[in-house]
Amino acid sequence: MSELDTLIQLLARLPGLGPRSARRAALFLLKRREQVMQPLAAALGAAAAAVRPCATCGNLDTADPCAICRDPERDASAICVVEDLADLWALERSGAFRGRYHVLGGTLSALDGVGPEELNIARLLARLGPEIELILALNATVEGQTTAHYIAERAAPTGARMSRLAQGVPIGGELDYLDEGTLTAALKARREM
Amino acid sequence: MSELDTLIQLLARLPGLGPRSARRAALFLLKRREQVMQPLAAALGAAAAAVRPCATCGNLDTADPCAICRDPERDASAICVVEDLADLWALERSGAFRGRYHVLGGTLSALDGVGPEELNIARLLARLGPEIELILALNATVEGQTTAHYIAERAAPTGARMSRLAQGVPIGGELDYLDEGTLTAALKARREM
Repeated sequence: MSELDTLIQLLARLPGLGPRSARRAALFLLKRREQVMQPLAAALGAAAAAVRPCATCGNLDTADPCAICRDPERDASAICVVEDLADLWALERSGAFRGRYHVLGGTLSALDGVGPEELNIARLLARLGPEIELILALNATVEGQTTAHYIAERAAPTGARMSRLAQGVPIGGELDYLDEGTLTAALKARREM
Repeated sequence: MSELDTLIQLLARLPGLGPRSARRAALFLLKRREQVMQPLAAALGAAAAAVRPCATCGNLDTADPCAICRDPERDASAICVVEDLADLWALERSGAFRGRYHVLGGTLSALDGVGPEELNIARLLARLGPEIELILALNATVEGQTTAHYIAERAAPTGARMSRLAQGVPIGGELDYLDEGTLTAALKARREM
């Protein structure tokens, strides 16, 4: 197989790219060797070598503990549990949380054979205590909520305060386009004004 | 900027990936360092170093002349002119053409300041002669057809026979979904049966 075919096959494995867009991406790169292709090769190599999971929270960073766990300005008494790094990034983009995180690396799933041992749960429990507020920011899916319940149960003996994200109508959301589950949750959790 | 941010920014420049899917791709890669990330870094480097344009036809390959120009089984008297490498690949996938190619590297465009000198046209004219059949497989766009007319005019003195791709209803196409231009072309070029 030629260098070009190898490249296209590997690009096609990226989420969001299929065989057709992988060919387009390869052509795009070959036309921009100095500006994009060689920097991308270097960045992939550098990130593969340097980025590692934080032993404390599971975040990926070039340092361990990660920049968030090291930051003295961030509240060490609030730990936000997320499924995946993408969720941590989403919360960081919102700028609404100034505590620390714990990345589980997935959700419990009997179907996929993911048990508590496969997730970063033991290390989470070791971080908890009565002075800690645990925020369960798991996806509002069956797996996410199952995992949240499991963690809440295991965390109860540590004395940590626990909360979960509010459920309801998303900002800018139109009722007409929302599913029944969201509407039911929003109605149940209605707030006086 | 961290290695991770650099990687995400470069991935986001690929066509088909935006900032969000670039983040997803970076996470996907970091979870598959040995299987995808390091091979992709190596493939990008190898392709950037080894792949070059064929001096004859403009095709990209690790050898010059390219594999198609070198292949003695392919008809050297038929030259198919395409805008871009992606078009060459599309024709190769069809398996319908067993001649050689000439990649222009774009289309004439007064708007974008692309004149004949910016395209691989001089080398095309040097390949032509009365024994050659020139197939203009340019896109059925205004720019593609303008370029086809320009090449036909310039190629006429060489004595090459010229043709262009048929226009009409695509295979599997439903008339209801086709634009008026395609329907008009299909009607005009109707064939007796």
